Amino acid sequence: MSIARSIKESLASSSMIRKMFEEGNLLKKKFGADNVFDFSIGNPDLEPPPAFHRVLLRLAGEDARGSHGYMPNPGYPEVRAALAKKASREQGVDLDGSHIIMSVGAAGGLNVVLKAILNPGDEVIVSRPYFMEYRPYTANHGGRLVEVNARRDFNLDVAAIEAALSEKTAAVLINSPHNPTGRIYPAETIAALADVLSRHGKKSGRYPYLVADEPYREIAYNGVEVPPILAAYQESLAVTSYSKSLSLPGERIGYIAVNPAISEKDEVTGALIYATRVLGYVNAPALMQRIVAELTQERVEVEIYARRRDAFTEILHQAGIPYADPQGAFYLFCQVPSSTQPGDDRAFVEHLKQYRILGVPGSGFGAPGWVRFAYCVDETLIRASAAAFLEAVKTWKKESRHV
Amino acid sequence: MSIARSIKESLASSSMIRKMFEEGNLLKKKFGADNVFDFSIGNPDLEPPPAFHRVLLRLAGEDARGSHGYMPNPGYPEVRAALAKKASREQGVDLDGSHIIMSVGAAGGLNVVLKAILNPGDEVIVSRPYFMEYRPYTANHGGRLVEVNARRDFNLDVAAIEAALSEKTAAVLINSPHNPTGRIYPAETIAALADVLSRHGKKSGRYPYLVADEPYREIAYNGVEVPPILAAYQESLAVTSYSKSLSLPGERIGYIAVNPAISEKDEVTGALIYATRVLGYVNAPALMQRIVAELTQERVEVEIYARRRDAFTEILHQAGIPYADPQGAFYLFCQVPSSTQPGDDRAFVEHLKQYRILGVPGSGFGAPGWVRFAYCVDETLIRASAAAFLEAVKTWKKESRHV
Repeated sequence: MSIARSIKESLASSSMIRKMFEEGNLLKKKFGADNVFDFSIGNPDLEPPPAFHRVLLRLAGEDARGSHGYMPNPGYPEVRAALAKKASREQGVDLDGSHIIMSVGAAGGLNVVLKAILNPGDEVIVSRPYFMEYRPYTANHGGRLVEVNARRDFNLDVAAIEAALSEKTAAVLINSPHNPTGRIYPAETIAALADVLSRHGKKSGRYPYLVADEPYREIAYNGVEVPPILAAYQESLAVTSYSKSLSLPGERIGYIAVNPAISEKDEVTGALIYATRVLGYVNAPALMQRIVAELTQERVEVEIYARRRDAFTEILHQAGIPYADPQGAFYLFCQVPSSTQPGDDRAFVEHLKQYRILGVPGSGFGAPGWVRFAYCVDETLIRASAAAFLEAVKTWKKESRHV
Repeated sequence: MSIARSIKESLASSSMIRKMFEEGNLLKKKFGADNVFDFSIGNPDLEPPPAFHRVLLRLAGEDARGSHGYMPNPGYPEVRAALAKKASREQGVDLDGSHIIMSVGAAGGLNVVLKAILNPGDEVIVSRPYFMEYRPYTANHGGRLVEVNARRDFNLDVAAIEAALSEKTAAVLINSPHNPTGRIYPAETIAALADVLSRHGKKSGRYPYLVADEPYREIAYNGVEVPPILAAYQESLAVTSYSKSLSLPGERIGYIAVNPAISEKDEVTGALIYATRVLGYVNAPALMQRIVAELTQERVEVEIYARRRDAFTEILHQAGIPYADPQGAFYLFCQVPSSTQPGDDRAFVEHLKQYRILGVPGSGFGAPGWVRFAYCVDETLIRASAAAFLEAVKTWKKESRHV
């Protein structure tokens, strides 16, 4: 009796993060939750929009016969049809219900996609920094993650991706708006990437899938629109969730949108449905499916996040902490002040803790020298952290080894 | 661009089942759903108990702040504590919240357990016939399914399981009440199995896990109690769901109960929590977690299933179709009438279709010569199928090659 070796290793390496959480909890116990500036977790604090509560209450009251029973693995036909309309607007191509596979959040959707497409040893290219769960998601299904550095402004480095393509490349996995940098990849970048993938496919005979992880698509600022992916490249799939746009992360509801023009469409959707079944999701939660189908025009108030971003960047500016300007999502990716780059992000995070500020070292995202702060917390808490930030950076800079 | 090879093969082999469903749907279109005796699917038709609707409506009305947000991956602490009490009653050992991991149904829970314990090439022993999804669940995580024949009465053949144990055996996976036979393994059988596993562990140094898949635990007849598993063997885990006991299969809610005496308990629960996260479940759906925690004394009316079983077995008796006497679940596993055994189950299922009766060939469960009928359908439909059954068997027997 013993757990799997691979997990034993992962548990050991994730003990650092656990330790950080535990220390954060100790701080909160000691000083009170309102006196700890916890920017470590991407758990949206905004409530779902009022329309969510109305629909939930109505459906709970109706409780039609069979409404909590099994439905086809990819979801209710009418829900898929409703979300196809929404996806069509966002993705610039015409989808119908057959192109939508309901999923247990984006995390579930990504696992389904990777299970459906990966052969043992196949490669998935990601742009570094990247959401750290992509590594185990890929390993789950026998794949290998290939990391390519982003450009200095955190836009995709299309030439570097091109150089990393091989006959083993099953997919390029992108995330926009981006965790942890807040970057939105511009349409020209997506077009350039599509061009590179098409040329590689034509030459090698294997067109890599372009998989877009888009849980933050609706959290974008200053009127910036997240460019469509499906309109840009034929062999593409977009995975999304309602965790951020409707603040429903605990309910695990999202979907996969399959490009209507994808090669072997029936085989691809068949594989996604099969993966949904045998990975044990079986189907996305029934009640939540019916709710989100009625909320295709709704989203949380992005303006609240925008104000928090402004408040936070003002503090960073004053404290002299350089950061990547976020165009979407709710993270600030900050450079550790240091005379030599990369600065020591783990030491900086430890240092900040003395000022009751919690962040996540960039090393966890493959980007040493950086720290991620999540601003899905009350604006009051953000403003209250100003003095602590200023003081923390002053003392950090005093320690000659850093600056 | 192409889907995974392993899935391509699985899709091809499952096309038979798809074809069956499609033909069933065609029959329903042609004759009307009420005139097709569809016993093919284990989708409970009973509504959730009234208490479910009350709690859902109340929680929908309250909609407390943060109630759809993230919670710890294994679930809400108060939900885990409530279900620990229920599991303690059922399993004959004292569990607390730390021994409960909330899961996306039993299918999700089984995938989490297998991910947590399997090394590449490890073996999982199952008793044939078995729920067909165990094969992909095991393959998902690099394991190999080892099939051992059940005894003639479909009880576990403990000696055969003993003979199949090796240093690669990670787990023995049992299912009671059993799909497709309705068998409940008696306490003496569980004790004998525990004894065999303990002796194997002592000798080899590797104690196999005993994993009990128990979604039908609460669907048992004639006052039969499903014997506890955790009380019988130290290295054990029980996986269950509310898909059958509360008729909530579409909502994907269940849990894993870990034996409090299990070796390396923290490592095992850590691995289960890690697997819950990286397999993309992240957590069991939030609202349903809070609902089932309030319904630990509730279940659907098992008496309704019992009456259907009686109605169905009477018909089988009259038609001269031998069947395994079901003690639980809602399936009748029937022997194909034939002069030589095993009879041709696929041909028999095809033959029944002419009489608008739908069942599943036993070959799909590793048991050629048998057919499964699910009786989670209205009793009226069962009674109405009598004439069709009698006629179908008469014509089947007339074809000399069969009987």
